[in-house]
Amino acid sequence: MKFSILTLFPNLVESYLSESIMKRAQEKNKIDIEIIDIRSFATSPHNQVDDYQYGGGKGMVLMIEPIVLALESVKKDHSLVALLSPQGKTWNQGMSKKICREYKHLILIAGHYEGFDERILNFVDIELSIGDFVITGGELAALVVVDSITRIIPGVITSESYLQETFENNLLDFPVYTKPIDFRGFKVPEVLTSGHHKNIENFRQEQALKNTLLKRPDLLNEQKLSDYQKKIYQKIKTEGDK
Amino acid sequence: MKFSILTLFPNLVESYLSESIMKRAQEKNKIDIEIIDIRSFATSPHNQVDDYQYGGGKGMVLMIEPIVLALESVKKDHSLVALLSPQGKTWNQGMSKKICREYKHLILIAGHYEGFDERILNFVDIELSIGDFVITGGELAALVVVDSITRIIPGVITSESYLQETFENNLLDFPVYTKPIDFRGFKVPEVLTSGHHKNIENFRQEQALKNTLLKRPDLLNEQKLSDYQKKIYQKIKTEGDK
Repeated sequence: MKFSILTLFPNLVESYLSESIMKRAQEKNKIDIEIIDIRSFATSPHNQVDDYQYGGGKGMVLMIEPIVLALESVKKDHSLVALLSPQGKTWNQGMSKKICREYKHLILIAGHYEGFDERILNFVDIELSIGDFVITGGELAALVVVDSITRIIPGVITSESYLQETFENNLLDFPVYTKPIDFRGFKVPEVLTSGHHKNIENFRQEQALKNTLLKRPDLLNEQKLSDYQKKIYQKIKTEGDK
Repeated sequence: MKFSILTLFPNLVESYLSESIMKRAQEKNKIDIEIIDIRSFATSPHNQVDDYQYGGGKGMVLMIEPIVLALESVKKDHSLVALLSPQGKTWNQGMSKKICREYKHLILIAGHYEGFDERILNFVDIELSIGDFVITGGELAALVVVDSITRIIPGVITSESYLQETFENNLLDFPVYTKPIDFRGFKVPEVLTSGHHKNIENFRQEQALKNTLLKRPDLLNEQKLSDYQKKIYQKIKTEGDK
C-alpha cells in the first residue's frame, strides 16, 4: 500500500511516521509513504498558498492551484484521492478494511486551519472526516487514516491483537487482566485463573456483550451474537422487563 | 489549561506538540503540556510494562501498576482523568467545549497496540474514543483531544476561523472560494463577486443548509435554522414531496 500525504506542514506528519509500527511497516516494505509539501507547488510570488475569500469574511482559504498541481504530481490512474475535512464521510473500521482491500495508492490531502476552495471537490474522489470535531489541520486526520489502514495489512502486526476484535462483530471487546492478581484490593475475576477453558470463554462472551450494552448499545447487532450471547441477551432483556 | 499525557512513546506526541499552533499556544502560556513516560514508573525488572493476560489468549496487556503510579505523580484534586480507548465515549465538539469550560487540568492516558488491565477503570473519570476504528495507540487520539480543545481556548487562534462554524449550529459550513475566479473552467459563483451583501448572506445560508442535507442530514436541527433557512428548507421538503 502506498500513501501520499499532501500537506503544508510536512514536519507534523513526518515524525509520527518515522516511529514505532509505522516505521517498521515501511522497513518491511508493507507500506510506502511519500509526503508532499503543497507549498512547493505555489505559483504566486512569496510561495503564497492562501488568500482572502470571495464575498468577504474572516479566515483565509487555501488556493486550489497549488493543491491540484501537487495532486497531479503523484496521482496515477488507480489512485484514490481523499480530502480530509470535517464535512467528510466519518471514518470507521469498515472503510479502513475496504480501502485496504481495494486500493493500492491512497492520496490524502490535508489542509491546515483554513478551508479549501470548494472547487477542489472536482478533483477528489472522497471527503473523509475522523469525527464531529474541529482540529487545527487535516494532518492528524491523515495520520489516523494511514495508521488504521496500516495496522490491518497482513504482516504488519505479528501477533493478532485482541483489540482488533473491537468493532469486528459489532461488539466491544471483553475485559483483559494481567499481573498482579490483587492490586490495592482490585482483583482479577476468579474464573480467569481457574484454568477452565469453557467457563473462561463463556465469561468473555458475556462480558463483551455486557460491555457493549453498557457503553455502545448502538453498535449491537443481535444477528451476529453467538448462541451463548443470544441466551444471555434474552435473559438480560427479560430481567429488564420485570 | 494544562494537559498531562501519559504514554509509552513520548516521541510520538512530542514532535506534533512542538510545531505550529500547539507550539504557539504554549509560548503564549495558553496551554501547558507535560508528557509522562509510563515506562519510567515500571516496578518490574527490565522496566517491563506489559504481560500475558490471565485466562489465555494472544496479545499483551498493559499492567495497571506503572499507569497508576504515573497517574498519581501528576493528579491533583481538580484533574479530569481520561483514558483513550476504542470503547470510550465518542469525542465531539460539544465535549471539547465542555472540558475547555469546566476543567483546568486534563490527564490523558494513551496505550499502545495493547489493551489495558480492566482495573484501570477504577482510577479514571472517563473513557474517550475518537471514533469507531482501531489505531495503533492512544497517542493520536490524545493529540486530537488536545488539539481540538486548544484551538477553542480564547486567544489561541487570533482570527475567527469560519471552519469553527462547522458543527456549531448543527450545520456544516458554507463553501468558500478564493483566487483565481476561473480555474480550468471551474468558476467562483457569481453572487460572491457581486458586492451585494444581502444576496451573499442568503447564498451562504442556503449553501450551508444544502451542504448539511446532502452530506450529514443526521446533524440537522430544524429549530436552529435561521428564518431564511427555514423558508428554503420548507421549499426543499415541498419539492421533495411532489
